[in-house]
Amino acid sequence: MATARTIIKTRVGIVGGGPAGLMLSHLLAKNGIENLVVESRDHETIRNTHRAGILEAGSVKMLTDSGVDGRVLTHGDEHEGIDLRFNGESHPLDFTDLVDATVTLYAQNEVFVDLAAARKRDNGDVRYSSEVTAVFDLETETPKFHFTDATGTDFEVHCDILVGADGSRSFCRRAVPGTQDFKIEYPFAWFGILTEAPKSAPELIYANSPHGFALISQRSETVQRMYFQCDPNEDVDAWSEDRIWSELQRRVDGPDGFTLKTGNIFDKTVLKFRSFVREPLSHGRMFLIGDAGHTVPPTGAKGLNLAFADVKVLFEAIDSYYSTQNSTLLHGYSDLALKRVWKAQNFSYWMTSMLHTPVDADPFMAKRALGELDTVTSSRFGQQYLAESYTGWPHS
Amino acid sequence: MATARTIIKTRVGIVGGGPAGLMLSHLLAKNGIENLVVESRDHETIRNTHRAGILEAGSVKMLTDSGVDGRVLTHGDEHEGIDLRFNGESHPLDFTDLVDATVTLYAQNEVFVDLAAARKRDNGDVRYSSEVTAVFDLETETPKFHFTDATGTDFEVHCDILVGADGSRSFCRRAVPGTQDFKIEYPFAWFGILTEAPKSAPELIYANSPHGFALISQRSETVQRMYFQCDPNEDVDAWSEDRIWSELQRRVDGPDGFTLKTGNIFDKTVLKFRSFVREPLSHGRMFLIGDAGHTVPPTGAKGLNLAFADVKVLFEAIDSYYSTQNSTLLHGYSDLALKRVWKAQNFSYWMTSMLHTPVDADPFMAKRALGELDTVTSSRFGQQYLAESYTGWPHS
Repeated sequence: MATARTIIKTRVGIVGGGPAGLMLSHLLAKNGIENLVVESRDHETIRNTHRAGILEAGSVKMLTDSGVDGRVLTHGDEHEGIDLRFNGESHPLDFTDLVDATVTLYAQNEVFVDLAAARKRDNGDVRYSSEVTAVFDLETETPKFHFTDATGTDFEVHCDILVGADGSRSFCRRAVPGTQDFKIEYPFAWFGILTEAPKSAPELIYANSPHGFALISQRSETVQRMYFQCDPNEDVDAWSEDRIWSELQRRVDGPDGFTLKTGNIFDKTVLKFRSFVREPLSHGRMFLIGDAGHTVPPTGAKGLNLAFADVKVLFEAIDSYYSTQNSTLLHGYSDLALKRVWKAQNFSYWMTSMLHTPVDADPFMAKRALGELDTVTSSRFGQQYLAESYTGWPHS
Repeated sequence: MATARTIIKTRVGIVGGGPAGLMLSHLLAKNGIENLVVESRDHETIRNTHRAGILEAGSVKMLTDSGVDGRVLTHGDEHEGIDLRFNGESHPLDFTDLVDATVTLYAQNEVFVDLAAARKRDNGDVRYSSEVTAVFDLETETPKFHFTDATGTDFEVHCDILVGADGSRSFCRRAVPGTQDFKIEYPFAWFGILTEAPKSAPELIYANSPHGFALISQRSETVQRMYFQCDPNEDVDAWSEDRIWSELQRRVDGPDGFTLKTGNIFDKTVLKFRSFVREPLSHGRMFLIGDAGHTVPPTGAKGLNLAFADVKVLFEAIDSYYSTQNSTLLHGYSDLALKRVWKAQNFSYWMTSMLHTPVDADPFMAKRALGELDTVTSSRFGQQYLAESYTGWPHS
């Protein structure tokens, strides 16, 4: 006996309630465009999924200008540069001086918390713990999807526009063929730790060393996040605190005697990553945003920013569609969003290949990377080119 | 019965009379430092070995300021930019506007002709058609080498300093072990033609196309040089004029209808290339300069310029040695020269990988290259970074 499905009609159906889906939902609601967000995880799980977050100024602006919350300004940590460290020497890049821009360290789960609170405050319809089981009729005027909520109730959503914002393992993306999936795997991963220690440095340190890459990041005055390049199959249990600190330290060693400030390590994870792009980012009336359409290695700090850039392009296209009944911008969404996606893919690949030394690296390529770091850091134009990419190109 | 060897004593013995060796010889002679150049080929052969030449402003300055000849200014063709063409669209980079610098198109054999004439004019001792058969005592105060001249006479040269300027298959380099040779091969080569045709464009066009790279270059008002990426084992005889023009044209095709100006093709060659660096660039009292120490792919137009940069560093070190009896700069030659070598290796690799599509290219990497070209050309900082590298970093 078939279960009866409750039918919900809305204008924009958003599959995925992470930062991308919620940001789009928020912007649409602000402009009076009814929408529904369906998210498989519960609020608490997302809130507690710690992911680093480096926000471009443009992303910060999207949060504050649209009235989500100003908390990013008071609780975020503005960074005016980074340090590129190689051959044991520091090379600070001062973003403010170079390109008159900054980035803000604000954990991705905090962005989620702010967005979720804003949707609740504004009576947004966000269904957590609700599993999408089908998307269909995508090439019609009324794309649809099925979901089952936490109580087991089955729904069928009818909308004008369906948005896949459901992350890198996107159900929406997998439901359609696409023209092509582009991807590369990397022969290394990041070993990440959280430690109860004071800051080792005021800005993020990206270190190229003969022993591999390390990233010395910050989270607060008392808790720090650090990473070092490792084998993708590394076993975190094989790493004692002493071994971790000695591995991190030797990757930042140098004649300047720079020494990491150590402390109790309370979290260890291996972060695997790849570069991925689905083309096109649309299929009929379904549009993919954020990780659902593309993933980048973390080296360029572009993941969340790229998702927000997609949101901006898609929001403007949807808004234009409802105000003019003209779908030109909707048809152009994929091409326009992909332009920035490929710039970000290149930047992420560039930073990754310049800073990491694969275990079986060709010695020429390792020296070339050092030649590149030297070229970039010894040239104001090189520093500006990198700084502009890191802090974010203007939104289209 | 052993042949008697005539002994020649000089201060600096230079093996190789191409542009690097002759330029060093010229600078040393100007400062009163006696030297001898020994070159295996005859003057006519080198004069007729056509090799493209794009001179950085710093290289032009070395020719004119040192009194070699001003002919590069009157007969060279100053270029104020290049055109990066991809997705069928032109993206001109105006070097003058971007970095207040230009490059000069002046064939490498013309540089040789000028230098050879200047050495002759100044009574320099240059032995053409003379084969070096041994280098030895390199770690003593008096390094030596044997050579046999065109008449079959055998010589033994005793010098204070021995310089290997004998090109990519350097006898000098092969005579010593070195610490490490760094190299990469490329899965493609350049098919080069000379054609009797008017210029197709005022500036060099570097084209990335789905069919592979093409370079549309100039030589004079009536003769042009063009290249297209090909298989390293390509057979030039398999290529008719029609086939060549159609291959070149499809690599620059675009909505703008850009059309190559064709003509009789009177030279066809396949140019193989690799990236190579010997470390260190010295062994006792022997020093390697130019192609003897490192070779770059032609994409970055750095070969001759890098050789001249080596010459400048080594000349100053030798000059300092004779004026102060202090060999600190000589000991520092390799490290200092290698800094620029690795910047140039990186630039050449960058230009090559951004512009070429290997036959078996990962589709992600081909799209990434287009994303990089888009990032560079849409950013003034990106354009400046590339322009600065192309026109040449300041000499150290």
